[in-house]
Amino acid sequence: MPIRDDLRPYEPYGAPQLDVPVQLNVNENPYGPSKATADDIAESLRIAATDLNRYPDREAWALRTALASYLGHGLGPDAVWLANGSNEVMQQILQAFGGPGRTAASFTPTYSMYPEYARNTHTRWITGRRADDFTFDVDAALALIAAEQPDVVLLASPNNPTGESLSLESVRAVCDAAPGIVVLDEAYAEFRRPGTPTALSVLEDYPRLIVTRTMSKAFAFAGGRLGYLAADPAIVDALRIVRLPYHVSTVTQTVALAALRHADEMLARVAELRATRDETAQWLREQGFQVVDSDANFVLFGTFADRHAVWQAVLDHGVLIRETGPDGWLRVSVGTPEEMGAFRDALTAVVATARQAQDGGSATERTPNEEEQA
Amino acid sequence: MPIRDDLRPYEPYGAPQLDVPVQLNVNENPYGPSKATADDIAESLRIAATDLNRYPDREAWALRTALASYLGHGLGPDAVWLANGSNEVMQQILQAFGGPGRTAASFTPTYSMYPEYARNTHTRWITGRRADDFTFDVDAALALIAAEQPDVVLLASPNNPTGESLSLESVRAVCDAAPGIVVLDEAYAEFRRPGTPTALSVLEDYPRLIVTRTMSKAFAFAGGRLGYLAADPAIVDALRIVRLPYHVSTVTQTVALAALRHADEMLARVAELRATRDETAQWLREQGFQVVDSDANFVLFGTFADRHAVWQAVLDHGVLIRETGPDGWLRVSVGTPEEMGAFRDALTAVVATARQAQDGGSATERTPNEEEQA
Repeated sequence: MPIRDDLRPYEPYGAPQLDVPVQLNVNENPYGPSKATADDIAESLRIAATDLNRYPDREAWALRTALASYLGHGLGPDAVWLANGSNEVMQQILQAFGGPGRTAASFTPTYSMYPEYARNTHTRWITGRRADDFTFDVDAALALIAAEQPDVVLLASPNNPTGESLSLESVRAVCDAAPGIVVLDEAYAEFRRPGTPTALSVLEDYPRLIVTRTMSKAFAFAGGRLGYLAADPAIVDALRIVRLPYHVSTVTQTVALAALRHADEMLARVAELRATRDETAQWLREQGFQVVDSDANFVLFGTFADRHAVWQAVLDHGVLIRETGPDGWLRVSVGTPEEMGAFRDALTAVVATARQAQDGGSATERTPNEEEQA
Repeated sequence: MPIRDDLRPYEPYGAPQLDVPVQLNVNENPYGPSKATADDIAESLRIAATDLNRYPDREAWALRTALASYLGHGLGPDAVWLANGSNEVMQQILQAFGGPGRTAASFTPTYSMYPEYARNTHTRWITGRRADDFTFDVDAALALIAAEQPDVVLLASPNNPTGESLSLESVRAVCDAAPGIVVLDEAYAEFRRPGTPTALSVLEDYPRLIVTRTMSKAFAFAGGRLGYLAADPAIVDALRIVRLPYHVSTVTQTVALAALRHADEMLARVAELRATRDETAQWLREQGFQVVDSDANFVLFGTFADRHAVWQAVLDHGVLIRETGPDGWLRVSVGTPEEMGAFRDALTAVVATARQAQDGGSATERTPNEEEQA
């Protein structure tokens, strides 16, 4: 098979899609659209469906207008762009501003798809490190930027899988130092703790800053695949050159517009999910685990000498969490109170079993030097 | 703006989206889904919508199974792949099998998006020529393949914008000669004239042959954005490495599955459109135009010394056709009988006006050597 040699080592990306009762692995919102919203979505499509023989509005202007209104900050539709998930938004950004001979940089641990976007667009990929507690180390970042002059800097805030946000001072420092595009991936922005800023508030100061968002998480629309961004209109114009024509279907535009009309309901659970997240973090700390402060709808906790064994044992109790991020840590998405109860019960049982077997060394034994794991 | 230098010369691709009464410019099916089909689409989504907080089936297995069944030829879902329009299918093919250091070849005049796919994936793009009558020149193609050893050969059959299909002998000859992947773009396959074969019938002989299709044209589903392909499962596995995870939404999968349940209805107008196409070609010949034999839902006709003036004059009569393809030619999509009547009236009026003004030389004057225009 004449596939590119640089792709041969790879398997298709993706968390296991397993059919288990409690799914806390891909940071989905546990609350789906209500029947009223589902009805409005269906009725909107019923009207649009008889015209599906026609191509969509290539510019998706109505949806971009609605997203601009949702974002606020004085943004207009010309400052908003969208695609089939923030995956495709990121790929378009690297197609336009990365590519062969260009470099993209990020700071690990961070979202594991970033190197795949770079690989798919032939962009050189370099990484610096976050601090040992996973917070953003602005001095180390500025040193890397000064040394490597990356064409694109990719920063997740809140970061996935660790959960922490960047300060506005850090965002400004990176934007001042970076020679090219700076992308703030704010997929989880709606879950951030009170007082945590969004980079949208400094967008007008930086014409090369892009803030990406998604309807997949807080908006409970992962199955709708709608990622978007806010940036200077000149950046949007550049992305329009590399986008595939008609890349967002009439169906997606119609359905996302209908969902946005129900934004109040779709987002109503965010406060509850934040509270559940904080309770989960508190409970994990009480069990003696290390826990990273989270502005997102997940919690990273650890550490485990054999995290895979713990992941599997929790799965054997019917709870699917995620084996991702730095060695020794696991990530749990924030579900309903009932789902989090199942998670707590499963983890408690796994830890108890491991402690009983502890003389031989166990999967959940804390590693001798936890700081090294970070 | 730090956009890539190689992208600076470009404007976003796309035909003008103008709001005129008769749209015969992007080869849409003029007949939309019926109310019954629209209802089934809406009801299917109503059920799926309450789970839109969950990510889609990344493998889209149910839809691939339905498309395999639609294609026939003994294909299973593991031999079918899909994406948001055949645009994205093509981009994935070039991401996996083209890219930096690799070459893709086609034969012009052909679909004008092909070089954009190559540009976006940094694939070297080379072209040979079709014969003067736009038929596929197999000897010239084999010579180019022998000389350039392209990693990917892209062939449209029926070809856009000219309309002619490749013979199975030509397909076999190219597959035997090409060192890499051969893509037969059969976007318009359902419109081919009786007795014209599909490359699906030789798929099992060539593990590096890909046949692409779309639901946009005969299937009247351009607004749904569903392109797909049939190929050896090893090719599908390679594409799964470069596809963005969850690239096809639950919404798209649900709606396309519902539309496929109404395939008989969706395709019922194909025979009528074929007849209208042949009548349109016949009428154009009777007016003294050159016309290319078409297996698709459009007709290429000419030639014009100033085709832009003719395009504009026809548009001034409320009929939008397409200024594309070889110099001097214009393409008209096949619409309803009423729409084709409006087209005939508009073109007749434009030609009459031009003849009245002929002493000064006119836009519709035939060029002295029409063969050179081809």
